[in-house]
Amino acid sequence: MYINEEKLKELHNHYRIHLINGITGTKAANLIATKSKSGLENVAVFSSVIHLGSEPALIGFILRQGKVERHTFENILETKYYTINHINDTIYTKSHHSSAKFPRETSEFLATGLNSVYLNNFYAPYVEQSLIKFGLELQEVIEIKSNETKLVVGKITDIHLPSNCVHENGFVDLQNAGSMSIGGLDAYYNLDLQARLSYAETSEIPKPIDFNNNGRG
Amino acid sequence: MYINEEKLKELHNHYRIHLINGITGTKAANLIATKSKSGLENVAVFSSVIHLGSEPALIGFILRQGKVERHTFENILETKYYTINHINDTIYTKSHHSSAKFPRETSEFLATGLNSVYLNNFYAPYVEQSLIKFGLELQEVIEIKSNETKLVVGKITDIHLPSNCVHENGFVDLQNAGSMSIGGLDAYYNLDLQARLSYAETSEIPKPIDFNNNGRG
Repeated sequence: MYINEEKLKELHNHYRIHLINGITGTKAANLIATKSKSGLENVAVFSSVIHLGSEPALIGFILRQGKVERHTFENILETKYYTINHINDTIYTKSHHSSAKFPRETSEFLATGLNSVYLNNFYAPYVEQSLIKFGLELQEVIEIKSNETKLVVGKITDIHLPSNCVHENGFVDLQNAGSMSIGGLDAYYNLDLQARLSYAETSEIPKPIDFNNNGRG
Repeated sequence: MYINEEKLKELHNHYRIHLINGITGTKAANLIATKSKSGLENVAVFSSVIHLGSEPALIGFILRQGKVERHTFENILETKYYTINHINDTIYTKSHHSSAKFPRETSEFLATGLNSVYLNNFYAPYVEQSLIKFGLELQEVIEIKSNETKLVVGKITDIHLPSNCVHENGFVDLQNAGSMSIGGLDAYYNLDLQARLSYAETSEIPKPIDFNNNGRG
Protein backbone atom coordinates (compact mmCIF):
# COMPACT_ATOMS: atom_id res chain seq x y z
CA MET A 1 0.00 0.00 0.00
CA TYR A 2 1.38 3.43 -0.98
CA ILE A 3 0.04 6.65 0.53
CA ASN A 4 1.42 9.96 -0.72
CA GLU A 5 0.97 13.37 0.85
CA GLU A 6 -2.15 14.18 -1.12
CA LYS A 7 -3.81 10.87 -0.24
CA LEU A 8 -2.82 11.37 3.41
CA LYS A 9 -4.73 14.66 3.52
CA GLU A 10 -7.81 13.03 2.02
CA LEU A 11 -7.99 10.21 4.57
CA HIS A 12 -10.74 10.20 7.17
CA ASN A 13 -9.47 12.00 10.27
CA HIS A 14 -9.77 8.93 12.54
CA TYR A 15 -8.01 6.74 10.02
CA ARG A 16 -5.12 9.20 9.72
CA ILE A 17 -4.77 9.52 13.50
CA HIS A 18 -4.57 5.74 13.92
CA LEU A 19 -2.19 5.39 10.96
CA ILE A 20 0.27 8.13 11.94
CA ASN A 21 0.24 7.16 15.61
CA GLY A 22 1.01 3.57 14.65
CA ILE A 23 3.54 4.06 11.94
CA THR A 24 6.48 5.18 14.11
CA GLY A 25 6.56 1.72 15.69
CA THR A 26 6.35 0.68 19.31
CA LYS A 27 6.32 3.20 22.13
CA ALA A 28 7.22 2.84 25.78
CA ALA A 29 4.12 2.44 27.95
CA ASN A 30 4.53 4.85 30.85
CA LEU A 31 2.45 6.69 33.41
CA ILE A 32 3.49 10.17 34.46
CA ALA A 33 2.39 11.09 37.99
CA THR A 34 2.37 14.52 39.59
CA LYS A 35 0.93 16.40 42.55
CA SER A 36 -0.26 20.00 42.44
CA LYS A 37 0.87 22.58 45.01
CA SER A 38 -2.55 22.25 46.62
CA GLY A 39 -2.07 18.47 46.96
CA LEU A 40 -4.14 17.09 44.08
CA GLU A 41 -2.60 13.97 42.57
CA ASN A 42 -2.65 13.32 38.84
CA VAL A 43 -1.59 10.36 36.72
CA ALA A 44 -1.88 9.74 32.96
CA VAL A 45 -0.50 7.57 30.17
CA PHE A 46 2.32 9.06 28.11
CA SER A 47 3.65 7.05 25.17
CA SER A 48 6.23 9.65 24.17
CA VAL A 49 8.87 9.23 26.89
CA ILE A 50 12.31 9.32 25.30
CA HIS A 51 15.94 8.91 26.36
CA LEU A 52 17.99 12.06 25.76
CA GLY A 53 21.26 11.29 27.53
CA SER A 54 22.86 9.28 30.31
CA GLU A 55 25.31 11.80 31.83
CA PRO A 56 23.45 13.76 33.05
CA ALA A 57 20.48 11.38 32.97
CA LEU A 58 17.99 13.35 30.90
CA ILE A 59 14.60 12.13 29.76
CA GLY A 60 12.06 13.90 27.55
CA PHE A 61 8.40 13.58 26.76
CA ILE A 62 6.10 15.30 24.29
CA LEU A 63 3.27 17.47 25.48
CA ARG A 64 0.28 17.89 23.21
CA GLN A 65 -2.59 20.35 23.58
CA GLY A 66 -5.06 18.00 25.28
CA LYS A 67 -6.76 18.41 28.62
CA VAL A 68 -5.18 15.32 30.19
CA GLU A 69 -1.67 16.45 29.39
CA ARG A 70 -2.39 19.98 30.58
CA HIS A 71 -3.07 18.92 34.18
CA THR A 72 0.20 17.01 34.26
CA PHE A 73 2.07 19.95 32.78
CA GLU A 74 0.54 22.53 35.15
CA ASN A 75 1.64 20.43 38.10
CA ILE A 76 5.15 20.04 36.73
CA LEU A 77 5.49 23.78 36.14
CA GLU A 78 4.18 24.53 39.65
CA THR A 79 6.29 22.00 41.53
CA LYS A 80 9.16 20.97 39.15
CA TYR A 81 8.80 17.29 40.10
CA TYR A 82 7.19 14.28 38.41
CA THR A 83 7.59 10.53 38.19
CA ILE A 84 7.67 8.12 35.25
CA ASN A 85 6.29 4.63 35.95
CA HIS A 86 6.31 1.62 33.62
CA ILE A 87 2.96 0.12 32.67
CA ASN A 88 2.97 -3.65 33.08
CA ASP A 89 0.44 -6.34 32.27
CA THR A 90 -1.20 -6.16 35.71
CA ILE A 91 -2.20 -2.48 35.30
CA TYR A 92 -2.53 -1.75 31.61
CA THR A 93 -6.33 -1.51 31.73
CA LYS A 94 -6.31 0.81 34.76
CA SER A 95 -3.54 2.81 33.10
CA HIS A 96 -5.46 3.20 29.86
CA HIS A 97 -8.49 4.30 31.89
CA SER A 98 -6.41 7.14 33.41
CA SER A 99 -6.34 8.72 29.92
CA ALA A 100 -10.06 9.55 30.12
CA LYS A 101 -10.93 13.22 30.54
CA PHE A 102 -11.39 13.27 34.29
CA PRO A 103 -12.04 16.73 35.78
CA ARG A 104 -9.13 18.59 37.38
CA GLU A 105 -10.27 17.83 40.94
CA THR A 106 -10.51 14.06 40.38
CA SER A 107 -7.43 11.99 41.20
CA GLU A 108 -6.97 9.42 38.47
CA PHE A 109 -5.40 7.23 41.14
CA LEU A 110 -8.72 7.00 43.00
CA ALA A 111 -10.76 6.81 39.80
CA THR A 112 -8.84 3.95 38.22
CA GLY A 113 -7.45 1.83 41.05
CA LEU A 114 -3.81 2.71 40.49
CA ASN A 115 -2.17 3.20 43.90
CA SER A 116 -0.07 6.24 44.69
CA VAL A 117 2.95 5.80 46.91
CA TYR A 118 5.55 8.27 48.18
CA LEU A 119 9.16 7.13 48.33
CA ASN A 120 12.34 8.65 49.81
CA ASN A 121 10.78 12.08 50.34
CA PHE A 122 10.27 12.66 46.63
CA TYR A 123 7.52 15.28 46.15
CA ALA A 124 5.52 13.57 43.41
CA PRO A 125 3.73 10.26 43.87
CA TYR A 126 4.84 7.03 42.21
CA VAL A 127 2.53 4.29 40.93
CA GLU A 128 2.87 1.50 43.45
CA GLN A 129 2.08 -1.29 40.98
CA SER A 130 4.86 -0.25 38.58
CA LEU A 131 8.05 -2.25 39.08
CA ILE A 132 10.34 0.22 37.31
CA LYS A 133 9.85 3.88 38.18
CA PHE A 134 11.90 7.02 38.57
CA GLY A 135 11.60 10.59 39.78
CA LEU A 136 12.59 13.65 37.74
CA GLU A 137 13.24 17.33 38.19
CA LEU A 138 12.18 19.68 35.39
CA GLN A 139 15.10 21.12 33.40
CA GLU A 140 13.77 22.69 30.25
CA VAL A 141 10.57 23.12 28.21
CA ILE A 142 11.20 23.39 24.49
CA GLU A 143 8.65 24.66 21.98
CA ILE A 144 8.25 22.66 18.77
CA LYS A 145 7.11 25.38 16.39
CA SER A 146 6.06 23.06 13.57
CA ASN A 147 2.92 22.02 15.45
CA GLU A 148 2.88 23.89 18.76
CA THR A 149 3.75 20.92 20.91
CA LYS A 150 6.43 20.93 23.59
CA LEU A 151 9.35 18.73 24.57
CA VAL A 152 9.58 18.59 28.36
CA VAL A 153 13.08 17.72 29.60
CA GLY A 154 13.74 16.37 33.09
CA LYS A 155 16.74 15.07 35.00
CA ILE A 156 16.47 11.74 36.83
CA THR A 157 17.15 12.11 40.54
CA ASP A 158 15.69 8.87 41.94
CA ILE A 159 15.38 5.35 40.50
CA HIS A 160 13.44 2.39 41.89
CA LEU A 161 13.53 -1.05 40.33
CA PRO A 162 13.64 -4.67 41.49
CA SER A 163 17.15 -6.13 41.75
CA ASN A 164 16.19 -9.06 39.55
CA CYS A 165 15.38 -6.66 36.70
CA VAL A 166 18.94 -5.26 36.48
CA HIS A 167 21.82 -7.37 35.25
CA GLU A 168 25.39 -7.05 36.47
CA ASN A 169 26.41 -4.50 33.85
CA GLY A 170 23.33 -2.30 34.31
CA PHE A 171 21.20 -3.85 31.55
CA VAL A 172 17.53 -3.35 32.45
CA ASP A 173 15.49 -6.51 31.87
CA LEU A 174 12.22 -5.01 30.64
CA GLN A 175 10.60 -8.36 29.94
CA ASN A 176 11.25 -9.56 33.48
CA ALA A 177 9.64 -6.36 34.77
CA GLY A 178 6.55 -7.01 32.63
CA SER A 179 7.05 -3.61 30.95
CA MET A 180 4.85 -3.15 27.89
CA SER A 181 4.97 -1.44 24.51
CA ILE A 182 2.16 0.65 23.09
CA GLY A 183 1.23 0.52 19.41
CA GLY A 184 -0.87 3.34 17.99
CA LEU A 185 -3.46 4.74 20.39
CA ASP A 186 -4.73 1.62 22.11
CA ALA A 187 -2.66 -1.54 21.57
CA TYR A 188 -0.70 -2.96 24.50
CA TYR A 189 2.05 -5.47 23.71
CA ASN A 190 4.10 -7.77 25.90
CA LEU A 191 7.78 -8.18 25.12
CA ASP A 192 9.44 -11.37 23.94
CA LEU A 193 13.24 -11.16 23.81
CA GLN A 194 14.68 -12.23 20.47
CA ALA A 195 18.30 -11.53 21.47
CA ARG A 196 20.73 -9.11 22.95
CA LEU A 197 23.47 -8.40 20.42
CA SER A 198 27.15 -7.69 20.94
CA TYR A 199 28.51 -4.15 20.47
CA ALA A 200 28.54 -3.37 16.76
CA GLU A 201 31.99 -3.45 15.14
CA THR A 202 32.72 -2.78 11.48
CA SER A 203 34.76 -5.96 11.16
CA GLU A 204 32.21 -8.59 12.18
CA ILE A 205 28.54 -9.43 12.28
CA PRO A 206 27.07 -8.87 15.78
CA LYS A 207 26.58 -12.03 17.83
CA PRO A 208 23.84 -12.87 20.33
CA ILE A 209 25.02 -12.34 23.91
CA ASP A 210 24.85 -15.58 25.84
CA PHE A 211 23.39 -14.55 29.19
CA ASN A 212 24.43 -17.81 30.85
CA ASN A 213 28.10 -17.68 29.96
CA ASN A 214 29.06 -14.13 30.77
CA GLY A 215 27.45 -13.13 34.01
CA ARG A 216 24.07 -12.43 32.40
CA GLY A 217 25.52 -10.08 29.81
CA MET B 1 16.81 -1.34 44.54
CA TYR B 2 16.96 2.41 45.12
CA ILE B 3 19.46 4.65 43.33
CA ASN B 4 19.59 8.32 44.22
CA GLU B 5 21.36 11.09 42.32
CA GLU B 6 24.59 10.74 44.28
CA LYS B 7 24.73 6.98 43.77
CA LEU B 8 23.95 7.48 40.08
CA LYS B 9 27.04 9.67 39.67
CA GLU B 10 29.21 7.08 41.39
CA LEU B 11 28.15 4.20 39.12
CA HIS B 12 30.62 2.80 36.60
CA ASN B 13 30.13 4.64 33.34
CA HIS B 14 29.08 1.53 31.36
CA TYR B 15 26.64 0.50 34.08
CA ARG B 16 25.03 3.95 34.05
CA ILE B 17 24.75 4.02 30.26
CA HIS B 18 23.01 0.63 30.21
CA LEU B 19 20.76 1.58 33.13
CA ILE B 20 19.62 4.97 31.83
CA ASN B 21 19.19 3.71 28.28
CA GLY B 22 17.03 0.88 29.59
CA ILE B 23 14.96 2.62 32.17
CA THR B 24 12.71 4.64 29.85
CA GLY B 25 11.20 1.39 28.60
CA THR B 26 10.87 0.00 25.12
CA LYS B 27 11.88 1.98 22.07
CA ALA B 28 10.83 1.69 18.45
CA ALA B 29 13.44 -0.16 16.40
CA ASN B 30 13.98 1.91 13.27
CA LEU B 31 16.58 2.48 10.57
CA ILE B 32 17.05 5.96 9.16
CA ALA B 33 18.35 6.00 5.59
CA THR B 34 19.75 8.95 3.67
CA LYS B 35 21.77 9.78 0.55
CA SER B 36 24.34 12.57 0.34
CA LYS B 37 24.32 15.11 -2.49
CA SER B 38 27.26 13.26 -3.99
CA GLY B 39 25.28 10.00 -3.96
CA LEU B 40 26.66 8.18 -0.91
CA GLU B 41 24.01 6.12 0.86
CA ASN B 42 23.86 5.88 4.64
CA VAL B 43 21.71 3.82 7.01
CA ALA B 44 21.82 3.52 10.82
CA VAL B 45 19.70 2.38 13.77
CA PHE B 46 17.78 5.09 15.61
CA SER B 47 15.82 4.10 18.70
CA SER B 48 14.55 7.62 19.39
CA VAL B 49 11.92 8.05 16.69
CA ILE B 50 8.86 9.71 18.18
CA HIS B 51 5.37 10.72 17.08
CA LEU B 52 4.79 14.47 17.32
CA GLY B 53 1.46 14.96 15.59
CA SER B 54 -0.88 13.51 12.98
CA GLU B 55 -2.10 16.67 11.15
CA PRO B 56 0.37 17.55 9.80
CA ALA B 57 2.08 14.16 10.18
CA LEU B 58 5.22 15.15 12.10
CA ILE B 59 7.84 12.75 13.41
CA GLY B 60 10.89 13.53 15.51
CA PHE B 61 14.13 11.82 16.39
CA ILE B 62 16.99 12.67 18.73
CA LEU B 63 20.43 13.37 17.40
CA ARG B 64 23.38 12.75 19.68
CA GLN B 65 27.00 13.75 19.11
CA GLY B 66 28.26 10.43 17.71
CA LYS B 67 29.90 9.79 14.39
CA VAL B 68 27.16 7.48 13.11
CA GLU B 69 24.45 10.03 13.72
CA ARG B 70 26.52 12.81 12.20
CA HIS B 71 26.63 11.22 8.75
CA THR B 72 22.88 10.83 8.78
CA PHE B 73 22.41 14.40 9.91
CA GLU B 74 24.80 15.89 7.35
CA ASN B 75 22.89 14.14 4.58
CA ILE B 76 19.55 15.36 5.92
CA LEU B 77 20.78 18.96 6.13
CA GLU B 78 22.21 18.75 2.60
CA THR B 79 19.22 17.14 0.94
CA LYS B 80 16.23 17.63 3.31
CA TYR B 81 15.03 14.05 2.74
CA TYR B 82 15.28 10.82 4.75
CA THR B 83 13.38 7.61 5.32
CA ILE B 84 12.39 5.73 8.49
CA ASN B 85 12.20 1.94 8.15
CA HIS B 86 10.99 -0.57 10.76
CA ILE B 87 13.45 -3.20 11.94
CA ASN B 88 11.89 -6.65 11.89
CA ASP B 89 13.10 -10.05 13.02
CA THR B 90 14.60 -10.90 9.61
CA ILE B 91 17.01 -7.93 9.66
CA TYR B 92 17.70 -7.05 13.30
CA THR B 93 21.29 -8.41 13.23
CA LYS B 94 22.15 -6.59 9.98
CA SER B 95 20.48 -3.49 11.37
CA HIS B 96 22.48 -3.59 14.60
CA HIS B 97 25.63 -4.03 12.54
CA SER B 98 24.87 -0.75 10.73
CA SER B 99 25.53 1.04 14.06
CA ALA B 100 29.25 0.26 13.84
CA LYS B 101 31.52 3.20 13.07
CA PHE B 102 31.91 2.68 9.34
CA PRO B 103 33.86 5.41 7.54
CA ARG B 104 31.94 8.13 5.73
CA GLU B 105 32.60 6.64 2.29
CA THR B 106 31.29 3.17 3.20
CA SER B 107 27.63 2.48 2.51
CA GLU B 108 26.19 0.59 5.47
CA PHE B 109 23.82 -0.99 2.98
CA LEU B 110 26.70 -2.72 1.23
CA ALA B 111 28.56 -3.45 4.46
CA THR B 112 25.66 -5.10 6.29
CA GLY B 113 23.48 -6.72 3.64
CA LEU B 114 20.53 -4.38 4.03
CA ASN B 115 19.16 -3.59 0.57
CA SER B 116 18.48 -0.04 -0.56
CA VAL B 117 15.51 0.58 -2.77
CA TYR B 118 14.13 3.76 -4.36
CA LEU B 119 10.37 4.19 -4.47
CA ASN B 120 8.07 6.72 -6.16
CA ASN B 121 10.87 9.15 -7.00
CA PHE B 122 11.67 9.83 -3.34
CA TYR B 123 15.25 11.13 -3.04
CA ALA B 124 16.42 9.01 -0.10
CA PRO B 125 16.69 5.22 -0.20
CA TYR B 126 14.38 2.91 1.72
CA VAL B 127 15.38 -0.39 3.33
CA GLU B 128 13.88 -3.03 1.06
CA GLN B 129 13.51 -5.64 3.83
CA SER B 130 11.45 -3.33 6.06
CA LEU B 131 7.72 -3.88 5.69
CA ILE B 132 6.69 -0.52 7.15
CA LYS B 133 8.62 2.51 5.93
CA PHE B 134 8.02 6.16 5.20
CA GLY B 135 9.72 9.16 3.66
CA LEU B 136 10.10 12.52 5.38
CA GLU B 137 11.01 16.09 4.54
CA LEU B 138 13.00 18.05 7.13
CA GLN B 139 10.97 20.76 8.91
CA GLU B 140 12.92 21.94 11.93
CA VAL B 141 16.05 21.21 13.97
CA ILE B 142 15.64 22.09 17.64
CA GLU B 143 18.56 22.45 20.07
CA ILE B 144 18.16 20.76 23.46
CA LYS B 145 20.35 22.99 25.58
CA SER B 146 20.43 20.74 28.64
CA ASN B 147 22.82 18.31 26.94
CA GLU B 148 23.53 19.68 23.47
CA THR B 149 21.48 17.13 21.60
CA LYS B 150 18.99 17.99 18.87
CA LEU B 151 15.41 17.09 18.06
CA VAL B 152 15.07 16.69 14.28
CA VAL B 153 11.49 17.22 13.07
CA GLY B 154 10.27 15.91 9.71
CA LYS B 155 6.98 15.79 7.85
CA ILE B 156 5.82 12.49 6.37
CA THR B 157 5.27 12.74 2.63
CA ASP B 158 5.26 9.06 1.58
CA ILE B 159 4.12 5.89 3.36
CA HIS B 160 4.66 2.27 2.31
CA LEU B 161 3.19 -0.66 4.20
CA PRO B 162 1.57 -4.00 3.40
CA SER B 163 -2.23 -3.91 3.21
CA ASN B 164 -2.50 -6.75 5.71
CA CYS B 165 -0.73 -4.63 8.34
CA VAL B 166 -3.38 -1.88 8.33
CA HIS B 167 -6.85 -2.49 9.71
CA GLU B 168 -10.02 -0.85 8.38
CA ASN B 169 -9.83 2.12 10.72
CA GLY B 170 -6.14 2.82 10.12
CA PHE B 171 -4.76 0.81 13.05
CA VAL B 172 -1.24 -0.34 12.19
CA ASP B 173 -0.67 -3.98 13.12
CA LEU B 174 2.96 -3.85 14.25
CA GLN B 175 3.07 -7.49 15.31
CA ASN B 176 1.89 -8.65 11.91
CA ALA B 177 4.65 -6.54 10.35
CA GLY B 178 7.25 -8.17 12.60
CA SER B 179 8.23 -4.73 13.93
CA MET B 180 10.49 -4.92 16.98
CA SER B 181 11.16 -2.99 20.17
CA ILE B 182 14.62 -2.12 21.45
CA GLY B 183 15.49 -2.25 25.14
CA GLY B 184 18.58 -0.41 26.31
CA LEU B 185 21.45 -0.47 23.83
CA ASP B 186 21.30 -3.97 22.47
CA ALA B 187 18.13 -5.95 23.26
CA TYR B 188 15.70 -6.70 20.45
CA TYR B 189 12.18 -7.78 21.41
CA ASN B 190 9.33 -9.22 19.41
CA LEU B 191 5.81 -8.02 20.16
CA ASP B 192 3.02 -10.12 21.61
CA LEU B 193 -0.35 -8.36 21.64
CA GLN B 194 -2.04 -8.39 25.04
CA ALA B 195 -5.06 -6.38 23.90
CA ARG B 196 -6.32 -3.33 22.14
CA LEU B 197 -8.47 -1.32 24.53
CA SER B 198 -11.56 0.79 23.85
CA TYR B 199 -11.33 4.59 23.95
CA ALA B 200 -10.97 5.68 27.58
CA GLU B 201 -14.12 7.17 29.11
CA THR B 202 -14.41 8.44 32.68
CA SER B 203 -17.59 6.43 33.27
CA GLU B 204 -16.34 2.91 32.54
CA ILE B 205 -13.35 0.64 32.59
CA PRO B 206 -11.84 0.19 29.10
CA LYS B 207 -12.75 -3.08 27.36
CA PRO B 208 -10.65 -5.19 25.03
CA ILE B 209 -11.58 -4.57 21.40
CA ASP B 210 -12.78 -7.77 19.81
CA PHE B 211 -11.11 -7.76 16.42
CA ASN B 212 -13.43 -10.44 15.04
CA ASN B 213 -16.69 -8.71 15.85
CA ASN B 214 -16.13 -5.17 14.69
CA GLY B 215 -14.34 -5.24 11.39
CA ARG B 216 -10.95 -5.83 12.99
CA GLY B 217 -11.21 -2.80 15.32
